[in-house]
Amino acid sequence: MKVIKNIKEMRTFSDAVRKAGKSIVFAPTMGCLHRGHVSLLEKGRSLGDVLVLSIFVNPLQFGPKEDYASYPRDFNADLTLAEANRVDVVFRPDAEEMYPDGYETHVEVERLSKHLCGLSRPGHFRGVATVVAKLFNIIMPDTAIFGEKDFQQLMIIKKMAQDLNIGVNIVSVPIIREPDGLALSSRNNHLNREERKAARCLYIAIKKGKDIFERGVKDVDIILKEVKRVVKAEPLAVIDYVKVCGVDTLEDVDIVAGKALMAMAVRIGKTRLIDNCILG
Amino acid sequence: MKVIKNIKEMRTFSDAVRKAGKSIVFAPTMGCLHRGHVSLLEKGRSLGDVLVLSIFVNPLQFGPKEDYASYPRDFNADLTLAEANRVDVVFRPDAEEMYPDGYETHVEVERLSKHLCGLSRPGHFRGVATVVAKLFNIIMPDTAIFGEKDFQQLMIIKKMAQDLNIGVNIVSVPIIREPDGLALSSRNNHLNREERKAARCLYIAIKKGKDIFERGVKDVDIILKEVKRVVKAEPLAVIDYVKVCGVDTLEDVDIVAGKALMAMAVRIGKTRLIDNCILG
Repeated sequence: MKVIKNIKEMRTFSDAVRKAGKSIVFAPTMGCLHRGHVSLLEKGRSLGDVLVLSIFVNPLQFGPKEDYASYPRDFNADLTLAEANRVDVVFRPDAEEMYPDGYETHVEVERLSKHLCGLSRPGHFRGVATVVAKLFNIIMPDTAIFGEKDFQQLMIIKKMAQDLNIGVNIVSVPIIREPDGLALSSRNNHLNREERKAARCLYIAIKKGKDIFERGVKDVDIILKEVKRVVKAEPLAVIDYVKVCGVDTLEDVDIVAGKALMAMAVRIGKTRLIDNCILG
Repeated sequence: MKVIKNIKEMRTFSDAVRKAGKSIVFAPTMGCLHRGHVSLLEKGRSLGDVLVLSIFVNPLQFGPKEDYASYPRDFNADLTLAEANRVDVVFRPDAEEMYPDGYETHVEVERLSKHLCGLSRPGHFRGVATVVAKLFNIIMPDTAIFGEKDFQQLMIIKKMAQDLNIGVNIVSVPIIREPDGLALSSRNNHLNREERKAARCLYIAIKKGKDIFERGVKDVDIILKEVKRVVKAEPLAVIDYVKVCGVDTLEDVDIVAGKALMAMAVRIGKTRLIDNCILG
């Protein structure tokens, strides 16, 4: 397994792979890898010849009051896990390599970025779209893999690729959960024991919403009232948002006709967690 | 010579060229080709194996009150000229192909877009950067050629390519002028006989500024005063801006130390013309 820090070196590697007629599969991550990432790598391994994993905590997608500095990092553990999952190249540029002095170009997927997490994290998805556009240009993958836990991110990357005619096939993998239902996230590392217990409320709420929907309730107000009640019953939880919205537009819907996305962001102490499921 | 309207077909063509180990040179234009464009094609022909010319009047780079509808178009003449200049492929998508319903992604080079033409044409360079990013992704050129008449555009494309790690070599060609000095532009077609005469004032002013500078005047206020006086002497001319600015930053300078860009935009009747030269 190769570890590359330099953009030029990464591009030279990718160029050579493509010239040899081999395909590249790319899994972008911010490191602190867990079983959710492993599922990206497993899927990726099956979709092409050369598997590239990037590890880059992207400063551009963190707000000034967010957890960029404290975002969990564990590069040695990441390397072990990457090697065990047959990654060919780990690309780990530093922030100065990606955003040198005078950096000033941004990519924005405008409408999709306005909803859900975009409301409480202004600029977040602009940072995500920009770094992914850069990584695509550097790594030149045939296929890139994203997790469905970050559903809005997945939608935005798909739309960016479509709108900008980026020739990368975007593939997604389902949410991986702890035995008690908590969606895997690097940020779960921030939770103390009490908070970790409290964090179960997201999945319980998700399941509650899905159950109600599957029993025939299509009225979003009724669904959300029950879902929010579950979260609010947990004293350590503070709702950022709980929404039911169109799967393609991410715009709020009143009635679930066909499919819809139920998504939530909840603060447990200082840690903001997200979860989602598809209704329908 | 092939003419391609469809994005997928263009990409398939480019893919095949690259897989055959040949290089692609790309000259993006809005059509209504003149000798300025010919110089792009001549330069391009010498820099690679396959020469692609795009003709696309990009609605995204025109403001609501600008001349998108009346921008000069002459596709048959363009085809003749392209063929005569050994173009291999003319790519001419229509606006619906490039911006289908629901299009929402933009690329912005923020600081460089704020100066000069960016001030009087808000959103213009966002439209330029976005369409060029799309065309690069569709055509996948090794090299792309831009004219120095649109100096700010050239700078912005270079910065976009650098910032977003786009692996396209950006090459420029000098301004081509009429015998009386008027910089070639498709918009010169809009000028009636009287306006055409008046339009000479841009080049006379540019030359005046260059002369003063070369006689040793480095104080920008003094240079601009003389340059503006030349333009104002022409009754049909209305100055949009005349500036001397840093070649890399496009920020105004007070004193020319080393090199600087002198740039102007002037309205002759309803037609907005630009010109520039490097001092130093």
